[in-house]
Amino acid sequence: MSFATDIQVNLSRYWSTIESSAEIGKGRPGGLSRLALSDEDRKMRDLFVNWCREAGLSVEIDEVGSIFARREGLDPSLPPVMIGSHLDTQINGGRFDGIAGVLAGLEIVRRLNDLNHITRRPLVIVNWTNEEGARFSPPMVASGCFVGKYQADWVHAIIGDDGAVFGEELERIGYKGSRRCQPAQAGAVDAYYELHIEQGPILDAEKREVGIVTSGYPSHGMRVQFNGQTAHTGPTPMDLRHNALIAGARWLTAVDDIGWDFAIHDGKATGARLAAWPNKPGILSDSAQAVCDVRHPDPVTARVMAEKMRRALYESAAKAGCEAVIEDEWFWGGDIFNAEMVDNIRQLAITMGYNWRDIQSQAGHDAYFMATYCPTAMIFTPCEGGITHNNTENCTPDDLKAGLNILFHAVVQRANR
Amino acid sequence: MSFATDIQVNLSRYWSTIESSAEIGKGRPGGLSRLALSDEDRKMRDLFVNWCREAGLSVEIDEVGSIFARREGLDPSLPPVMIGSHLDTQINGGRFDGIAGVLAGLEIVRRLNDLNHITRRPLVIVNWTNEEGARFSPPMVASGCFVGKYQADWVHAIIGDDGAVFGEELERIGYKGSRRCQPAQAGAVDAYYELHIEQGPILDAEKREVGIVTSGYPSHGMRVQFNGQTAHTGPTPMDLRHNALIAGARWLTAVDDIGWDFAIHDGKATGARLAAWPNKPGILSDSAQAVCDVRHPDPVTARVMAEKMRRALYESAAKAGCEAVIEDEWFWGGDIFNAEMVDNIRQLAITMGYNWRDIQSQAGHDAYFMATYCPTAMIFTPCEGGITHNNTENCTPDDLKAGLNILFHAVVQRANR
Repeated sequence: MSFATDIQVNLSRYWSTIESSAEIGKGRPGGLSRLALSDEDRKMRDLFVNWCREAGLSVEIDEVGSIFARREGLDPSLPPVMIGSHLDTQINGGRFDGIAGVLAGLEIVRRLNDLNHITRRPLVIVNWTNEEGARFSPPMVASGCFVGKYQADWVHAIIGDDGAVFGEELERIGYKGSRRCQPAQAGAVDAYYELHIEQGPILDAEKREVGIVTSGYPSHGMRVQFNGQTAHTGPTPMDLRHNALIAGARWLTAVDDIGWDFAIHDGKATGARLAAWPNKPGILSDSAQAVCDVRHPDPVTARVMAEKMRRALYESAAKAGCEAVIEDEWFWGGDIFNAEMVDNIRQLAITMGYNWRDIQSQAGHDAYFMATYCPTAMIFTPCEGGITHNNTENCTPDDLKAGLNILFHAVVQRANR
Repeated sequence: MSFATDIQVNLSRYWSTIESSAEIGKGRPGGLSRLALSDEDRKMRDLFVNWCREAGLSVEIDEVGSIFARREGLDPSLPPVMIGSHLDTQINGGRFDGIAGVLAGLEIVRRLNDLNHITRRPLVIVNWTNEEGARFSPPMVASGCFVGKYQADWVHAIIGDDGAVFGEELERIGYKGSRRCQPAQAGAVDAYYELHIEQGPILDAEKREVGIVTSGYPSHGMRVQFNGQTAHTGPTPMDLRHNALIAGARWLTAVDDIGWDFAIHDGKATGARLAAWPNKPGILSDSAQAVCDVRHPDPVTARVMAEKMRRALYESAAKAGCEAVIEDEWFWGGDIFNAEMVDNIRQLAITMGYNWRDIQSQAGHDAYFMATYCPTAMIFTPCEGGITHNNTENCTPDDLKAGLNILFHAVVQRANR
């Protein structure tokens, strides 16, 4: 069964949870700085778990700290429908990125409670640990672990850029759960939905109320270590230098050039991190770590950009007389979402009379990993100017309304199949 | 009067002081990591002060921590002859850089004690605080203060790259002295001598025993702040980006290119530091600090390189959509040394039968600031392969012998005028 589509969620109740979240881990004015496994992350998790328990959900924590809040279905033996995203933020993050998606799950459950309606399949709201990767690299590590991409022991051993150890921080904040984090058999999850702010300017510019996410930008990334040799900045001749900082600077510059070369068809390339040692005046650096990625809507072009990024890496290292070691490589995106679910969401947008458009996701999301494991779909809501990973990230309740109502009906229809 | 030039210093006693110094603040194997105003710096200072007192010197500390150890002359009213360098090191430093020069002063005084000889003018050995600038930028800050280039209050307020405050660290290690650090009237110092390892490969490659320093490479440097804006690395179009890290990477790359363009005539250009914030995967950085410099034996060419560095700065910032603010600029080098003193040193090398050559200094030294204030000269000793600012920096006692004996006779001749 399904509800009449004029039944809507309680938008002001939903908005109040976003406002409460915005009080925890405040960063620069208007923004949040709620890094994974920090004290602020713990406070937000505690609040979220309380809300879930008050809504009658049973809460389980897995061994990498992800929170699963379950609302039982009429047939508890059926695989659940999951709704999720993340409550951690970037170091200069906004109030909506990730948060809007987790709290959407909560509002859907609260609304079903209002309506006294039990779905056929169970519902599970999930808060994935460390989606952002802002403290512990890589990002989306907990959803990756859930689908078998990473092992829990490996995740526990990750060292943050502040020297903290993932597993120790998890214990410290009391969120190292007992539930095993490993992929269950295929079919153990019926479907995964994620609502997220667009994090791009398209919906806002076109005054669209909602984006139907059809696919993810193919994105290729690399984390690299450059090895050189310390020496004096003065007398050391250019041809005897092994300045790892310059190897890194050359690579980031070359990757940025690749971004510009492909910008006309919406390609992007980013030098996001360069950390050298000793990185001081007077001395050439013998070590540098760098992170770059390239993205393009077309998978073949994205592969070409990735290959250019790889060749630029070795050219840059060679020019600086350094060695380059690729420590990690990743790829995500493409046509990963479930056509039937995407279609259903589009139909709901049409039926409910919203101004919608199909859209590709450009950022990485936990939904990408989930899509490798179970039928998955994403819904985008507009955000002001597309500004994100910045304290001025902004949405109004109206920006979130269409996406949230569509998610509500999509989840109920799926869970009542 | 002067001694017969066959009277030599006690090389093994001198070497033993270098070995003692090499025990304090050990870094990577064979090297030192004795940052200014650290506990290790304090230990080395205590040892040096003890040695000076044992040698009958009176010790004064100035308000920026420089140590002045005075051996009275026959005529105490005459301006003293100074011998100095620094006991601090780079974070991956060697056992000789700076240290060889300070301890040379000590050995000269000890040798004069052996000989029971009092010079006409007083002698002063000086250990300048924070020559390296490895913890507190800029380098050579205490000699700069001594000659009036910087003010003591300004020096005290410098914040290190570990967040420590110069003045507080000075008090913590007990080396905030009472002697005012400000330029005395002209003529208050008769002459300043500095012995230093070459920090370049020339003397070692040519098997020369000593280098007569005629001038310093003209060197132009800049410390720059880039201002951008945080945003998501994924959806943000290339033309809406303000990635301060890329502004910095482009500038360092351009400066390195300038170095290569002028390398054929021994020009050098260095990107030495680039520190961005947040500098994390997933987010564009809104802030970056960078330090670059250019050096060339010819002053006009050095100025051209500096101008290219400046233009590259604004080009790099513009390309990355960022603002560039020059926070500090410096210039040093040129024909700064005293011709009469240089000539005297050269004559001593000839008389004593050493294999010498004239040489330009490429690194910065406290002697550069002193040269703006009083007659100044430098003597270079060979070091293995020219390797420095590296734990494998290496010299033998024989490498130091010629320079030290020449310094001894030069100082005595000058002090007995």
